Amino acid sequence: MPEHEEQLEPLVTEIPPKAADLSAWYTAVTLKAELVSYSPVRGCVVLRPYGFALWENLQKALDQRFKATGHENAYFPLLIPEHLLVKEAEHVEGFAPEVAWVTQGGQERLNERLAIRPTSEVIIGVMYAKWIQSHRDLPVLINQWANVLRWEKATRPFLRTMEFLWQEGHTAHATAAEAREETLRMLDIYREVAEDVVGVPVYTGAKSPSERFPGAVETFSIEALMPDGKALQSGTSHDLGQNFSKAYDIKFADVDQSVKYVYTTSWGMSWRMLGGMIMTHGDDRGLRIPPALAPIEAVIVPIVKGNDTAPLAHAQELARDLRAAFRVRVDDRDYTPGWKFSEWEMRGVPVRIEIGPRDIQMESVTLVRRDKSKGEAGAKLSVLRSDLARRLRSELDHIQRAMHAQAKAFLESHTFATRDRSKFFELCESRAGMIDIPFCNRAECEANVKQRTSATTRVLRELGEPGAVCVACGEPAIVQAYFAQTY
Amino acid sequence: MPEHEEQLEPLVTEIPPKAADLSAWYTAVTLKAELVSYSPVRGCVVLRPYGFALWENLQKALDQRFKATGHENAYFPLLIPEHLLVKEAEHVEGFAPEVAWVTQGGQERLNERLAIRPTSEVIIGVMYAKWIQSHRDLPVLINQWANVLRWEKATRPFLRTMEFLWQEGHTAHATAAEAREETLRMLDIYREVAEDVVGVPVYTGAKSPSERFPGAVETFSIEALMPDGKALQSGTSHDLGQNFSKAYDIKFADVDQSVKYVYTTSWGMSWRMLGGMIMTHGDDRGLRIPPALAPIEAVIVPIVKGNDTAPLAHAQELARDLRAAFRVRVDDRDYTPGWKFSEWEMRGVPVRIEIGPRDIQMESVTLVRRDKSKGEAGAKLSVLRSDLARRLRSELDHIQRAMHAQAKAFLESHTFATRDRSKFFELCESRAGMIDIPFCNRAECEANVKQRTSATTRVLRELGEPGAVCVACGEPAIVQAYFAQTY
Repeated sequence: MPEHEEQLEPLVTEIPPKAADLSAWYTAVTLKAELVSYSPVRGCVVLRPYGFALWENLQKALDQRFKATGHENAYFPLLIPEHLLVKEAEHVEGFAPEVAWVTQGGQERLNERLAIRPTSEVIIGVMYAKWIQSHRDLPVLINQWANVLRWEKATRPFLRTMEFLWQEGHTAHATAAEAREETLRMLDIYREVAEDVVGVPVYTGAKSPSERFPGAVETFSIEALMPDGKALQSGTSHDLGQNFSKAYDIKFADVDQSVKYVYTTSWGMSWRMLGGMIMTHGDDRGLRIPPALAPIEAVIVPIVKGNDTAPLAHAQELARDLRAAFRVRVDDRDYTPGWKFSEWEMRGVPVRIEIGPRDIQMESVTLVRRDKSKGEAGAKLSVLRSDLARRLRSELDHIQRAMHAQAKAFLESHTFATRDRSKFFELCESRAGMIDIPFCNRAECEANVKQRTSATTRVLRELGEPGAVCVACGEPAIVQAYFAQTY
Repeated sequence: MPEHEEQLEPLVTEIPPKAADLSAWYTAVTLKAELVSYSPVRGCVVLRPYGFALWENLQKALDQRFKATGHENAYFPLLIPEHLLVKEAEHVEGFAPEVAWVTQGGQERLNERLAIRPTSEVIIGVMYAKWIQSHRDLPVLINQWANVLRWEKATRPFLRTMEFLWQEGHTAHATAAEAREETLRMLDIYREVAEDVVGVPVYTGAKSPSERFPGAVETFSIEALMPDGKALQSGTSHDLGQNFSKAYDIKFADVDQSVKYVYTTSWGMSWRMLGGMIMTHGDDRGLRIPPALAPIEAVIVPIVKGNDTAPLAHAQELARDLRAAFRVRVDDRDYTPGWKFSEWEMRGVPVRIEIGPRDIQMESVTLVRRDKSKGEAGAKLSVLRSDLARRLRSELDHIQRAMHAQAKAFLESHTFATRDRSKFFELCESRAGMIDIPFCNRAECEANVKQRTSATTRVLRELGEPGAVCVACGEPAIVQAYFAQTY
């Protein structure tokens, strides 16, 4: 048994229990782990270095996949003149209430208001109309990493803030089929990143008409389930058909010289995904970050007694050896080991490596897995130093898979298929999780469910059983739908 | 002699000669090479994929160096409430005329105007006041990648636009000496990136008081010299002393428990550096991009005659082999080889690899260096395929160094030290380059030179010769100064 079992200090007591009040737990953890700070700017948070490092890792995972599928990055203006914003009717109606307006520049009062982008379909559509002339110019596959702003009342770090960071892909295609294919390709990249990198299992599918992006022909999304039974929409991919190309006059001469409107798509994932990660994986000790996303995969804590400098020297040597292949950090601060253990557990580092006098003697280290409970089998391991790199890799891989599996078990055990109407309403109202029913896909029926229970459709998929009736209203069902309350 | 000499088509004639009108050349090249597009938003350009890829490579070069020197990235709000902006008197005076103001959010008229950040000292200072309590919290070493906005009349892609992309570092330290050390460390990183990555030689030094950043104790900058004899300020690093910590109340308890104001720094480089790269290296055929910054290091052009598919297949095989170590692209588009040669030359790709039937037969390729003139020794080489990776690496290294050396020779041959007053004014007025004189460092004298010649001090350094007099006014000199007209 390793030597340094004792020194756990009560740093974690400052976090309220997760099960009792997810919202209080969430706020405490995001602040205490120094992911974010509230700012003096209404509705806006600061992403602190540890939080930004999470975002950088999510960015890398997405950006690689975007580039591997032929997309390139670009950057479009922040400000959008009002006369351009208003051309796509549904789009402006959807976004106008959320827009912040610039009306003064320097000493000058502007003749026309400028919107801070709530999303960039408009300005990108205007540019695509200039760039695209011929079928040879298609497809256009562009992504933008940007800040956007939507005038919101509530502020919840990552989940809902006025300004947020995201990526928005915008593509143009010659045919409806290609645009649809692109929309689904990007949806699948979101699914893959959510599951394999963030460790958050999701349901995917189309949105009902009332949940669609303003101006889209079809919206697809990935939906995760949070511990409080509410769904979190974590990435959306829109088939915009010719709605924007007609509004912004994006045309091309086809092979046969006939002039046609292009088909466009847009798709976005924001730092909200990190909010889903925090809620999905965290526990009463704080964050648990999946290794693929972790700013620090392993923290090395020297167990120093008195003036013994050997543990720190060994810790630094370990770090040098591991650095080429792992994101590691030596905690050489002037705190007790116990304090450090608590802090790095709270901050969610997947693996802690302890090295003390006895470890040095044994040519080993003690490896502690953050994903396991204390005392659980495999939570604490003595590993030979000669075997450390190999073992660390395999433990990190296990942790990544174990966290996903645990979240998946939760999602599955909180997904309820029912054919009973009153049971359906009860499940929706009690926020039981994802409620799976045959559904008529009528706005009226959906509005009725929402009014009674606050639940809405999350994603739709093909009806499993032909001839089924809508569990919510008894009319003929045409799709299978997950209902849930939502963030 | 390689086989495909002939097919150069007159694509390049659409670019005006560089020497005749640098400004017209610059605009034509940035647009034609698809680095940028003008947008319908006043003062704003779109950074197109090829331009954004340049920015990504510059970002990587900087970001690596920031991280290697202990800095972390973070993200702060875009909008700054007016009452916060006005606390540091010089700062607000300097920036107020350039600020865009948000006065409406959704349907709501705001009680207080919100500035779109022209730079982030203010909002970051407010946060540092919350985060920093003790000497243990210092230093704080944070960088932000962000868009900023300054209300400008003129629009010149990269050089001057209303919105631009940049990084801004903001650090806090316990002592004045550490803050100064940081300021100079970051200046040196800018110098290194400008010279080694962008291939643009610079002079470095302090700014005169009238050229300082509003609110700084001392501003340092790197200054490049453009072909028209105007200097381009390409990166600045500011020692802010305690000006911002006093305005925003950023204090810490020192080791002895006494409470002190911190010392802060800030430093920034923007996409303007890319404007310097374009003007420095370009020629009448278009862009010349140094390999370290090039989105495509080598473009592979198959020389196809008739229906022969072998060249394309071989080109793709080459690309597969090279891709692990180089940024390569196969141009498989349906254009003539000559058209492709012109286009990729215009877009500045450092090396072109041609592969045609005779190359295939000889198991070789033809390698063409963009940095050399046509017909110049070493501009065109036949290279065995078995030796290609090694040779490409060495040619790219040579190109990187040759481009820097060429630019350095220009800077040196356009730097004039003079002790003659009328010669000095003549050099300044004729935009001869960097004019190096002993200088009194009085605002009055500098204003006089500016009024007569439009030239200003660029950077100051230690006086070489004690007892020298100011060449501009005859008063005692206290520094050595470069004067130049400027962008």
